[in-house]
Amino acid sequence: MAVDRKDNIIVAAEKTFASFGYKASTMDLIARTANVGKGTIYTFFQNKEELFYEIMNKFIQRLKKVAMNGIDPEEPFFVNLHRVLYKVLELRKEHQLTIKLTQEIRDIGTRQAQQALENVEDAILGFLEVYIRDAVEKKEIKACSPKVTAFVLLKLYVALVFDWEEHHEPLTSDEIADLFDLYLMRGLRK
Amino acid sequence: MAVDRKDNIIVAAEKTFASFGYKASTMDLIARTANVGKGTIYTFFQNKEELFYEIMNKFIQRLKKVAMNGIDPEEPFFVNLHRVLYKVLELRKEHQLTIKLTQEIRDIGTRQAQQALENVEDAILGFLEVYIRDAVEKKEIKACSPKVTAFVLLKLYVALVFDWEEHHEPLTSDEIADLFDLYLMRGLRK
Repeated sequence: MAVDRKDNIIVAAEKTFASFGYKASTMDLIARTANVGKGTIYTFFQNKEELFYEIMNKFIQRLKKVAMNGIDPEEPFFVNLHRVLYKVLELRKEHQLTIKLTQEIRDIGTRQAQQALENVEDAILGFLEVYIRDAVEKKEIKACSPKVTAFVLLKLYVALVFDWEEHHEPLTSDEIADLFDLYLMRGLRK
Repeated sequence: MAVDRKDNIIVAAEKTFASFGYKASTMDLIARTANVGKGTIYTFFQNKEELFYEIMNKFIQRLKKVAMNGIDPEEPFFVNLHRVLYKVLELRKEHQLTIKLTQEIRDIGTRQAQQALENVEDAILGFLEVYIRDAVEKKEIKACSPKVTAFVLLKLYVALVFDWEEHHEPLTSDEIADLFDLYLMRGLRK
């Protein structure tokens, strides 16, 4: 019963944050959306920040699960990596709360929204780093810094999945896989 | 004499835009900084937008010159490309007006500032595209789309030169050259 009520509050809060952003979502507004008294929310969460943190944390756990499920130990490093990055970025791209937070950062620079998206990025980088370190140790790829490589791979993917389509036709998953293979696995050298 | 007066206005206007951003820089303010009457400015430029466009255009010409001078036909594609990208991004990084416009876009989203920085990026991409097409034709690098490759190279460089140092020790030019060689020229494949 308590779990149901807590979940109900979390769902309502996520909806509120996704519609109005972090700053404009008051506890009153969340309580009204959840159809509970404000006091009920405070029995589960000390303040708005804590509630927001729980919601973002659930999203990060979801991303990690998607990433883990994207790895098939029978398949080569590159195929897994492409699938993981593509799935994770697709999920992030369609996630209403993340979209709203990105707008909020651009429009009014809310610190908590900024921090939340950095935490999401750090989680993705952390996952990639572990996976790359493993591939280097198993000699599946050349020796490289797992930290820098994770950073480069994520930046390149974000560029191809998000930035490219600001001014061009979107690339398909297969096209991105081919580009990724050419640029980062085979290299441009003749 | 007219050229001197025009140059004087351009220098003063660039200083004003770099201090106050595009939006807050009125023609009055520019006239005071240039120590001329507002009427004098209008003999050279129809409006603030035209004056701004001239200044940004001069900057783009300067970037192109730096890029051209960075290419030594005796040296391999990769060495030239690294030098050009590094020099161009260093120049952009230290350019006070560009820094101010970036802040202005973040803070109040001025359309003209946004457009100006997109023009700078397009100029760099255009230059890279020509250089990459040439390298593909001469079979110095593998067959690839010059447009997508220019985009990927610039995004990767911006990530390594600008974004990396937001949370880590800055990378030196040599380190970036090594990373670039590993990731994009040799590739990660064993």
